[in-house]
Amino acid sequence: MGDFTHFNDQGRAKMVDISDKEETVRTARVRSSVRVSKEIYEAIQGNRIKKGDVLSVAQVAGIMAAKKTPDIVPMCHPLPLKAVDITFEWTVENTYELIIDVTVKTKGNTGVEMEALTAASAVGLTVYDMCKAIDKGMIIGPTYLLEKTGGKNGDYRHDI
Amino acid sequence: MGDFTHFNDQGRAKMVDISDKEETVRTARVRSSVRVSKEIYEAIQGNRIKKGDVLSVAQVAGIMAAKKTPDIVPMCHPLPLKAVDITFEWTVENTYELIIDVTVKTKGNTGVEMEALTAASAVGLTVYDMCKAIDKGMIIGPTYLLEKTGGKNGDYRHDI
Amino acid sequence: MGDFTHFNDQGRAKMVDISDKEETVRTARVRSSVRVSKEIYEAIQGNRIKKGDVLSVAQVAGIMAAKKTPDIVPMCHPLPLKAVDITFEWTVENTYELIIDVTVKTKGNTGVEMEALTAASAVGLTVYDMCKAIDKGMIIGPTYLLEKTGGKNGDYRHDI
Amino acid sequence: MGDFTHFNDQGRAKMVDISDKEETVRTARVRSSVRVSKEIYEAIQGNRIKKGDVLSVAQVAGIMAAKKTPDIVPMCHPLPLKAVDITFEWTVENTYELIIDVTVKTKGNTGVEMEALTAASAVGLTVYDMCKAIDKGMIIGPTYLLEKTGGKNGDYRHDI
Amino acid sequence: MGDFTHFNDQGRAKMVDISDKEETVRTARVRSSVRVSKEIYEAIQGNRIKKGDVLSVAQVAGIMAAKKTPDIVPMCHPLPLKAVDITFEWTVENTYELIIDVTVKTKGNTGVEMEALTAASAVGLTVYDMCKAIDKGMIIGPTYLLEKTGGKNGDYRHDI
Amino acid sequence: MGDFTHFNDQGRAKMVDISDKEETVRTARVRSSVRVSKEIYEAIQGNRIKKGDVLSVAQVAGIMAAKKTPDIVPMCHPLPLKAVDITFEWTVENTYELIIDVTVKTKGNTGVEMEALTAASAVGLTVYDMCKAIDKGMIIGPTYLLEKTGGKNGDYRHDI
Repeated sequence: MGDFTHFNDQGRAKMVDISDKEETVRTARVRSSVRVSKEIYEAIQGNRIKKGDVLSVAQVAGIMAAKKTPDIVPMCHPLPLKAVDITFEWTVENTYELIIDVTVKTKGNTGVEMEALTAASAVGLTVYDMCKAIDKGMIIGPTYLLEKTGGKNGDYRHDI
Repeated sequence: MGDFTHFNDQGRAKMVDISDKEETVRTARVRSSVRVSKEIYEAIQGNRIKKGDVLSVAQVAGIMAAKKTPDIVPMCHPLPLKAVDITFEWTVENTYELIIDVTVKTKGNTGVEMEALTAASAVGLTVYDMCKAIDKGMIIGPTYLLEKTGGKNGDYRHDI
Repeated sequence: MGDFTHFNDQGRAKMVDISDKEETVRTARVRSSVRVSKEIYEAIQGNRIKKGDVLSVAQVAGIMAAKKTPDIVPMCHPLPLKAVDITFEWTVENTYELIIDVTVKTKGNTGVEMEALTAASAVGLTVYDMCKAIDKGMIIGPTYLLEKTGGKNGDYRHDI
Repeated sequence: MGDFTHFNDQGRAKMVDISDKEETVRTARVRSSVRVSKEIYEAIQGNRIKKGDVLSVAQVAGIMAAKKTPDIVPMCHPLPLKAVDITFEWTVENTYELIIDVTVKTKGNTGVEMEALTAASAVGLTVYDMCKAIDKGMIIGPTYLLEKTGGKNGDYRHDI
Repeated sequence: MGDFTHFNDQGRAKMVDISDKEETVRTARVRSSVRVSKEIYEAIQGNRIKKGDVLSVAQVAGIMAAKKTPDIVPMCHPLPLKAVDITFEWTVENTYELIIDVTVKTKGNTGVEMEALTAASAVGLTVYDMCKAIDKGMIIGPTYLLEKTGGKNGDYRHDI
Repeated sequence: MGDFTHFNDQGRAKMVDISDKEETVRTARVRSSVRVSKEIYEAIQGNRIKKGDVLSVAQVAGIMAAKKTPDIVPMCHPLPLKAVDITFEWTVENTYELIIDVTVKTKGNTGVEMEALTAASAVGLTVYDMCKAIDKGMIIGPTYLLEKTGGKNGDYRHDI
């Protein structure tokens, strides 16, 4: 049976000891999305030019949230983030889906999956917040790890 | 075309004025989920009794995140939360899916959708963090509003 | 058997619903202390005039910590603090003990015991931090509620 | 006379310069406690199995507070925490006392006494919060450093 | 001699008691500025269209900082902000000066001058941060209160 | 034309990659000021001895704000601050001006200008807050970088 690393002998969560782990450059790339109505899609796209850029607010929120990760995810170690980047793309077929890609980089003793996942979540939440006056039926996520590099356990790539 | 309420005349985001809105009891109920491997499912369920309860950590994370919402979602108003509750349920068919339900209540000038969505996201992130040593392929979300009550615009219920 | 109010039907902690509780003025008064060596006692007292006031730093820390209480104590409701005051007194007999008294006031739906206890703890921690280069044997606390007023359950006064 | 390191020439507190100090592994172990009534003791112990685990909430609070230490203790340096662990034990003689032991580890330029003391305080505060509906007469602490290792000044062990 | 309201009988700062003050709508309007080089002026103005909007990041920073005011200014009361808006204007004569205007609104027991001043400072800091790779000689401020309304002491208007 | 480093290919802000930059000791020295009325000047100076030291509160605020910089300035990297010091001086000619000097030191991959500027701003804001009951006409700033050392681009010194 798989075993958790986050629990002590008393069966209570701990912040696991990473003092022996190597300090290397580590990256994580995460994908999330927000499915929106046609009306919201057009408002976001149209407004970027004329009236206000929803995505630029969301992306600031994502970068700030990456830095807050150890304050949001209880057992997460504080890490010196070296880079955070967020890009957007639309998938417009029958539905209108905003694709959110987040890349985080550190040089530290443990990976930055949680930082990238947290940033992506905050981006989705902020898009929802800015557009909810138009329609509350938006769907945030699914959110998942695309890829990680660095660290003892080797690289990871999401199967598609 | 739908119109955003969050931008000022210069096309930049603002925190909208809610000083004229009525102070009423408002609730929001949100659903999220984490799809996990069979191995993680068994570890979470088995460990609750013996070795440490992943979900109790996740649920503390969710409640604390609800209180941090205005610090995570840039245009969100600070609100005096009056209650936060989180419940879990498993859907086990071909896949193993942890269903996360969050209810938030306030008495204030605006709704608590964002607080409930933020709490649900933090729960999912924490489950991921606690289980990622076993398998990194977990899927967080989709996350969406189930229902809201209170406020001028009336109640909302997600179409299923 | 005494019953906790902080757990839901699944046996997991929740932020209890206070939306029905009356909004009244509520106060709490808490006592803590730090037992220090003679050398630290003299350094604190002597320095106030000449070289730097340990207690003024500690007291700023206490007031700021009172405001952070819902971020430190997981199930605590955010409350609009209306006043925080901290006073110091020395008990010098065989030992050197700094007595810390904290009073917090709100007008809200629930009490401010936790805010006063958190402030008192932060004061003690800061005194320790500022003096630990001289001696690490200081003892923080005991910390306890002296008195509370306001709210449905009536006033409370610690038995001495 | 003992001399503070935390004040500048104008007699005002500063964050002392640690840039010349060696980066080594450092640990601190701290003890705190909460004295509770028999009723609370039985509720905590009984509920772990049936109705909700007070101590698991308190321990999450402690780990999160360790990370917030530089935000609570004004002159404290931010440090990359590498491990935090918290264990509980009961001393049941005439009184019912919950003993809280916290161990913190870093690899950095200065010690982690304050992180361990802050975590222990947050654990005590959270136990108080979760049980105060039953009885407000609990006593938090005394809280003190048991032991530290690493750093130029050598190890420290509390005299008993 | 003018008298401070923020000190207690022991000569140490306190959070003053506002529980008796009236809960009214209160606003504050603050002005700050950043003096930049011609090169930065042109980069900010040119980039809005083509390559990235410095001011939209700064304005998100300002709104988020307004909410963090009680965490930055020690004796500040937490207040339920109801609206924050920030506008920009350029004064281009011999120098290139970005004028920052911030308006904050609450319904509460005390004014929002500090929230508006804090937001304006964060805007200036963020503009500096985003442009410092081009030139570090920027000047932030002066920053001052233009106007406040609401509250017992009546309105205030800065003399020009 | 000057070029921003903080934007990605989509024209949205990112946290720039500093993982290749050298880890060296870096310092920044910043100056700010608060212009006050004669009445406030006399109250601050007189009270230090008798009734409460405004500047000691402001200086604690400044040091704590330095640590919060990445939480206030969106694209700022988290850095391990090694020292923060703040000194005050009065310029009393026709006006009464409190001069605030802040020095910050790190050993890291990027400079600490933003930390020093943020600390200086928080000092000014706190002085304003503590004195505003006497007169709201105070002027905070100008705030600017005096000097920086360390890092690839060499030292910087403000032209006077």
